[in-house]
Amino acid sequence: MSVVTISTDFGIADYAAGLLNGVVWNIAPSAEIVVLSHDIPRHDVMSGAHLLERSLPFFPRDTVHVYVIDPGVGTQRRAIAARLGDQFFVGPDNGLITLAAQKCAANREPVEIVHLSKPDYWLKDVSDIFHGRDIFTPVGAHLANGVSLNDLGPVISDPVWLDIPSPISQPGIITGQVMQVDHFGNLSTNILTDQILPNESIQITLGNRTIKALSRTFGDGKPGSLLALIDSSGRLSICVVNGSAANFLHLQAGAEVRVTWGDSFGPEKAHNAQ
Amino acid sequence: MSVVTISTDFGIADYAAGLLNGVVWNIAPSAEIVVLSHDIPRHDVMSGAHLLERSLPFFPRDTVHVYVIDPGVGTQRRAIAARLGDQFFVGPDNGLITLAAQKCAANREPVEIVHLSKPDYWLKDVSDIFHGRDIFTPVGAHLANGVSLNDLGPVISDPVWLDIPSPISQPGIITGQVMQVDHFGNLSTNILTDQILPNESIQITLGNRTIKALSRTFGDGKPGSLLALIDSSGRLSICVVNGSAANFLHLQAGAEVRVTWGDSFGPEKAHNAQ
Amino acid sequence: MSVVTISTDFGIADYAAGLLNGVVWNIAPSAEIVVLSHDIPRHDVMSGAHLLERSLPFFPRDTVHVYVIDPGVGTQRRAIAARLGDQFFVGPDNGLITLAAQKCAANREPVEIVHLSKPDYWLKDVSDIFHGRDIFTPVGAHLANGVSLNDLGPVISDPVWLDIPSPISQPGIITGQVMQVDHFGNLSTNILTDQILPNESIQITLGNRTIKALSRTFGDGKPGSLLALIDSSGRLSICVVNGSAANFLHLQAGAEVRVTWGDSFGPEKAHNAQ
Repeated sequence: MSVVTISTDFGIADYAAGLLNGVVWNIAPSAEIVVLSHDIPRHDVMSGAHLLERSLPFFPRDTVHVYVIDPGVGTQRRAIAARLGDQFFVGPDNGLITLAAQKCAANREPVEIVHLSKPDYWLKDVSDIFHGRDIFTPVGAHLANGVSLNDLGPVISDPVWLDIPSPISQPGIITGQVMQVDHFGNLSTNILTDQILPNESIQITLGNRTIKALSRTFGDGKPGSLLALIDSSGRLSICVVNGSAANFLHLQAGAEVRVTWGDSFGPEKAHNAQ
Repeated sequence: MSVVTISTDFGIADYAAGLLNGVVWNIAPSAEIVVLSHDIPRHDVMSGAHLLERSLPFFPRDTVHVYVIDPGVGTQRRAIAARLGDQFFVGPDNGLITLAAQKCAANREPVEIVHLSKPDYWLKDVSDIFHGRDIFTPVGAHLANGVSLNDLGPVISDPVWLDIPSPISQPGIITGQVMQVDHFGNLSTNILTDQILPNESIQITLGNRTIKALSRTFGDGKPGSLLALIDSSGRLSICVVNGSAANFLHLQAGAEVRVTWGDSFGPEKAHNAQ
Repeated sequence: MSVVTISTDFGIADYAAGLLNGVVWNIAPSAEIVVLSHDIPRHDVMSGAHLLERSLPFFPRDTVHVYVIDPGVGTQRRAIAARLGDQFFVGPDNGLITLAAQKCAANREPVEIVHLSKPDYWLKDVSDIFHGRDIFTPVGAHLANGVSLNDLGPVISDPVWLDIPSPISQPGIITGQVMQVDHFGNLSTNILTDQILPNESIQITLGNRTIKALSRTFGDGKPGSLLALIDSSGRLSICVVNGSAANFLHLQAGAEVRVTWGDSFGPEKAHNAQ
């Protein structure tokens, strides 16, 4: 068995999405295929990068992840494939692999990127406006069949990387930012679990609000209450129970988030506001 | 071959849904997976219970149905798995199995429920906010692999049941209620085919409207006309052809529906209004 | 391996869609299934006909395409199956196969249509309002299992055909029309690549606008600019980069499109407006 995942910004209503399954099965009849999302916001490479990084740990070895978030289709942007740990990526060279590659590097897992230059692994007729169908998906199917990454084109060392801000640590305070707003309005930050845990007392400030404790789960708060918790991918996340933190706080991606603890609280001890 | 179905209230735009396929395939590489719905209204356990009951008859023996409609995640609510006839359910203990278990009992098919208490069958790290990924889906994959229900935890006899109203039968009249409004605005009731058929003359009253016959299909009415028919799951359902009965009648779940026939019509005979 | 595709106008939120997978697997356990679309506009047979024609070339031999766009369910409309080249269609006899059958005929590929009249290949209980579940999908699964088309019912020669307008060619000018507006607002026409290419100079007129060149890809225009290009199915298509041509031009299906070139431009030579 081999697994191919497909993620696009086509929107759920577009016919083109399902057709990619046909392209895979024509080349790799035994592949299992799953759509991770057809609803990445249009041209939103950062959202695609998050999806890739969050999905990888839960898929089997040798899974091939095809991404069609490709505002530059038909221009000079390159098409690439990449080894990311024990799995593969195929898509445009526009930064989609940034977060996943950073995590692989941190875990000392291999990252290798090739420029797709061998039309033998593409469909015969390549449309200038649909490389997802004509290049990325067929290449993904060939990888699923066991074709070697290095057969697809030459290794490159200069892929496009997204500019990912790191949180800044100082004694008693860490300053990060909102990286992504999901469709429930939860605010996902660039502050990771191991940067703030374990700590007995902690408070989180963003916008003009301070949250005086880390919650364990949504069940800790009443509907409508503002919570900070560690989300299911290990990031500090700000949520409103059964509501939208983005709407409640009028914040979006890029907003500053500060975590303070210990003596930085001043004379009073913090208490859980919930 | 084994089949795993996945149903959630994540919404169609959420990345978390597709990732559950990876969790299944990591454990059960040969499983076929289908998403029944990611668009159950948020936290709507009753809608999930209807989906489960309506789906079961159409899936093969030993299919595993994973449900992630889980407002109580991370609280004291139990995680369960259940045998429902010749198939399986995995999800939170919040009443999702109520309608399917009632139907199994009526058909003298087995119902057995266990409390998931063996972390050997879960992912290693369990997030407090995503038991769907870390407990329900891996347990479902192990069931698909042939693990026995009784290996997953102890049998329980006190699961949470939803309060499902039964229609009340009196001579010449049956009084039920709208159970669910689907996304077309059709009103599905708790009155079943065999409670009203066959009858030569019948009329259905709800809100301030009376429908003077049962239609056989949508083709029996003009666009915009109000119909009562037996829906594809065997329930009395009220529809507007190419429209929304819920909007037309200003009714929602809980509204009373009365079916009368024979002498209860009074002196006049009912006629089809279409 | 055999592939079954499913396309419906149920809407993405409807529970009935996923259940069709169960119906297939009960009959054809080894079939791979893909949903092409559940978001065809309600009762829009023309959109379904486009989806079928555009999908066929990308699926493997013997793929079975099940279509449930069926406003006439339960009426006298026939249920059919068809051989279209090396693949199969199953659905209502309402014109869905028109475009695909025309293309097969043009390519001298076989087209054969049978009236589904053998209940042995249906579910045992057939609802008057859900032939998709009870007739089309089980028949599709039997075809995937290798049942012969001619076992399903008698050949018919009078299927329902949609009325598809052809573009009109005169010296220096071709007059066609908008066939379909996709969900991005792109206007797809009935003018095909080989009717207009290769030509050094070309201009496209629709509504009160003239586009003075054919673009190669979206990257050729700035966001908001109006482009004409050959879309990924080989049709002349009118688009607004990152926008909606339908909204920009206030046009819909049926609008006239004229392509002129060579001397028909009059004294001035056309220039690319981008």
